[in-house]
Amino acid sequence: MAKSGSPPDELVFLPLGGSGEIGMNFNAYGFGPPDDRQWIVVDCGVLFGREGNAPGVDILMPDIRYLAEQQGNVLGIVATHAHEDHIGAIAHLWPSLRCPVYATPFTARLITGKLEEAGLTGKLTVKQIPVGGSLTLGPFQMDFISITHSILEPNLLAITTPLGVVAHTGDWKIDPNPMLGEATDTAALQKLGDAGVLALVCDSTNALVPGSSGSEATVRESLTALIGTLKGRVAVTGFASNVARLDTIARAAKAHGRRIALVGRSMQKMVSAARETGYLKDFPTILDETELADMPPDRVLYICTGSQGEPRAALARIANDSHPNVHLAEGDTVIFSSRVIPGNELGIFEMQNQLAARGIGLLTAEDHFVHVSGHPCRDELAQMYRWIRPRLSVPVHGEIRHQMAHARLARELQVPQAIVPANGQMFRLAPGKPQLIDEVPAGRIHLDGKVLVAEGEGLAKDRRAMAFAGLIVVSLVMDAKGRVAAPPQVLAEGMPEPVQGAILRAVENVIEANRRADPDDLSETIRRAVRRAAQDAWGKKPLTRILVTEL
Amino acid sequence: MAKSGSPPDELVFLPLGGSGEIGMNFNAYGFGPPDDRQWIVVDCGVLFGREGNAPGVDILMPDIRYLAEQQGNVLGIVATHAHEDHIGAIAHLWPSLRCPVYATPFTARLITGKLEEAGLTGKLTVKQIPVGGSLTLGPFQMDFISITHSILEPNLLAITTPLGVVAHTGDWKIDPNPMLGEATDTAALQKLGDAGVLALVCDSTNALVPGSSGSEATVRESLTALIGTLKGRVAVTGFASNVARLDTIARAAKAHGRRIALVGRSMQKMVSAARETGYLKDFPTILDETELADMPPDRVLYICTGSQGEPRAALARIANDSHPNVHLAEGDTVIFSSRVIPGNELGIFEMQNQLAARGIGLLTAEDHFVHVSGHPCRDELAQMYRWIRPRLSVPVHGEIRHQMAHARLARELQVPQAIVPANGQMFRLAPGKPQLIDEVPAGRIHLDGKVLVAEGEGLAKDRRAMAFAGLIVVSLVMDAKGRVAAPPQVLAEGMPEPVQGAILRAVENVIEANRRADPDDLSETIRRAVRRAAQDAWGKKPLTRILVTEL
Repeated sequence: MAKSGSPPDELVFLPLGGSGEIGMNFNAYGFGPPDDRQWIVVDCGVLFGREGNAPGVDILMPDIRYLAEQQGNVLGIVATHAHEDHIGAIAHLWPSLRCPVYATPFTARLITGKLEEAGLTGKLTVKQIPVGGSLTLGPFQMDFISITHSILEPNLLAITTPLGVVAHTGDWKIDPNPMLGEATDTAALQKLGDAGVLALVCDSTNALVPGSSGSEATVRESLTALIGTLKGRVAVTGFASNVARLDTIARAAKAHGRRIALVGRSMQKMVSAARETGYLKDFPTILDETELADMPPDRVLYICTGSQGEPRAALARIANDSHPNVHLAEGDTVIFSSRVIPGNELGIFEMQNQLAARGIGLLTAEDHFVHVSGHPCRDELAQMYRWIRPRLSVPVHGEIRHQMAHARLARELQVPQAIVPANGQMFRLAPGKPQLIDEVPAGRIHLDGKVLVAEGEGLAKDRRAMAFAGLIVVSLVMDAKGRVAAPPQVLAEGMPEPVQGAILRAVENVIEANRRADPDDLSETIRRAVRRAAQDAWGKKPLTRILVTEL
Repeated sequence: MAKSGSPPDELVFLPLGGSGEIGMNFNAYGFGPPDDRQWIVVDCGVLFGREGNAPGVDILMPDIRYLAEQQGNVLGIVATHAHEDHIGAIAHLWPSLRCPVYATPFTARLITGKLEEAGLTGKLTVKQIPVGGSLTLGPFQMDFISITHSILEPNLLAITTPLGVVAHTGDWKIDPNPMLGEATDTAALQKLGDAGVLALVCDSTNALVPGSSGSEATVRESLTALIGTLKGRVAVTGFASNVARLDTIARAAKAHGRRIALVGRSMQKMVSAARETGYLKDFPTILDETELADMPPDRVLYICTGSQGEPRAALARIANDSHPNVHLAEGDTVIFSSRVIPGNELGIFEMQNQLAARGIGLLTAEDHFVHVSGHPCRDELAQMYRWIRPRLSVPVHGEIRHQMAHARLARELQVPQAIVPANGQMFRLAPGKPQLIDEVPAGRIHLDGKVLVAEGEGLAKDRRAMAFAGLIVVSLVMDAKGRVAAPPQVLAEGMPEPVQGAILRAVENVIEANRRADPDDLSETIRRAVRRAAQDAWGKKPLTRILVTEL
């Protein structure tokens, strides 16, 4: 491809998200000479905010300024599957890339819904790739190989370039009986490996977990039997995107003479998307919440959002009995057909305690077999490496501890090389031995309210500081001769009363001793005095701001 | 005991902490007529604060104003064992009770250390009860029955009154081989049951967990074998108060030719307390951190604080390589001989990621048998009920879901009655059938910095609001004629720049339209305008304060 005398073509891998975190997946592949690479983006997802690290921030997404500056060279965004941590940032970041978006039908349907909500309809149409189909963008020829995961239509992308083939797994597990959608196309994976693969870029979520993740089919058996043992109303909560699980729950309800309702917007959205793309053809009839309210409790099953304790989701409102249409009572049961996502423990437990206090039974994955993970455990990873036999292992989609464990496992499995990339590190995969060749700007963008803010601007950090120790504001009025013209106003927000008193006295003492002063000097003196007073009275040093009005 | 004509004596139980939470244990037993009860307090502990629910609050403790008002009738505080959630509030709450404190030697030693730190030395001496000893306080005759837990000298209190016997378990498990300290005094428990027990007031922590918690002896075998397989430096972190575990780790080190150092103040404090009270007589020699630094890595083992990711503890500093004397490197290993306390997940994982990123191996209870719980699982609870055979089960020491599961289990075990108390609910245990007879003021006190603040005052809640949406302050100067005398100062703390701009413009627009106004009216107009502006630009409504200076 390279002209004689010009630098040779390279194939590079550049993660801008998803390394070092489970979420916010954003992986770029570049091809061409260093000064004129063409790019494809695989997945473009969000990470959910946590009160502990980014209070008031609902979602985080990758800082992609490096690619935005090369907008004309970005050939497309390809989504492996429809989970939020793989597609949730498209509507937010597309305006700085303005490239086509490609996905299989179910995924495309959900992305389209997000674009509609973001007011991007008409600016961009998501291009559908058939299940098992292919796509060529410039030097990148991609085959969508069906795998299994906890959602419909997960794909491994086999990315063929003039310099070799990369297998990019997306999220996956090996489910011998996924109940809905395609099975793992093991023949295609085997064939891919036979032809020779440069690198396997692969999910690390469960790299610390021995064994296998288990099958939806066994959950179906277990949940069906369990629901058969229950009296009273049953509510089952889980991840709305796991359509096979919703199907399981609905069929289990039907098997035991219970009618179903979907409670929560994302449940309804997922079932609609699945039906519109040809799935769930014989799903049991869905009734309205209000229709179930008057039926005998033993005939009722609600499928609810809110397994993670989200305060505005259906189950949280059912738990504190503020839901308009769904009311549970003593003797009813809630099944959590889900896992606890780390960071959500306290919110989930609080909700479970509200239910338990009202005599509602709780069945969870802690005590019953009602959930399986969608990510590959160590035996499954080993099987994938046996199929693909890459020359290089690139663990992504994990915290560092997961990526490091994945890399160690790959080395044990005789993969010649394994690299753990950080977001922003650019690796040349070919020609030659894979190596780090550049570090480009990377980081996180916060969706703070409805404004995008770079994490480095520290707003969330400032607000954490206020959460810890409040804020002192002193308002000072000075005349043109540098005299204090009125008693200062003092605000000590978020502080105990005795501390507020100590701060007020400190301000008064400074003013007493400085009736006339340079405004800047006086501000600084007050600032120091109030921080010292707070430290003495409270043991904390709050953020302190002095507002000076000069008449 | 009652005089003729006066109301009869009653035995009552009143939890003021520890029901609905794992921590903050505070249980009172009262005896006498309703208007003149004598009280004993069993345990007086803290709950640790979480950034998510009480930012900037290190510890929480019970609101005991009800007993403080009857100070002269509180005969004593009796500690069952030395965990923080059972003794950590004594130094803070003793000043409002001013009664004697009783504990077995190891527990007494640790309480004394806390009183010294709080400057209470001389005001109060902790009275020692020998292991297996007894104590009589007014109508309460207490026998300290040795049980097993994850600390030295845990006790079940058999509380005998003229109206019957209550068995109060404290925290416990059934460890057939606790490695250090007394075994469970099963003969005493059996005998207690034979004599007839009114009520069993019992630990609910693991009431949702089937089976048994396991023995320290098996952890000793497993940890010793595991450490034998490791090359390089080894650091083991765990709960400092689990002295048997420290002994296990030290012996395992010695067995494999490793010398030990204790890293972190609470490790040193616990080992000293154990030695001073007669334990750990043949503990391996403890070297200083600095002495280990120069030894070959394979000869070194550090026993560290910080298993919960506490930012100032030893392991957090080792993880980010800021510890003055302990430096780990690639090929070294950290063993977490501990569990993850809910709410600490993200902090622990962050620390583990820092270690993993530096090539340091991690071994945890997730992947190796390196920890057992100190609380009774369901089989152990069943055994305790077989020994004690109470007429009433009172599950405490748990969240509501644990207490409810415990109560259900007790009913399955044929206990005639089970009640799940809430903090502040007073139950009459005798005479007659146990029943709720009163609800007294109860709640939580925050140690906010170094100031005690009632949870209801909402400081932590105000600070959470600031963490979510920041704080707007507008400083306004008005002259005596109600005219705005200078341009207003606007502070929009914790907000993105475009939102700050929108707020500033909103203030200017209001002033523009109101050059002369009543200060209160103008303040309210500004307050509404800036909140509306923030909502429009940002999607959030920050706390807003208007400071008016009238010249």
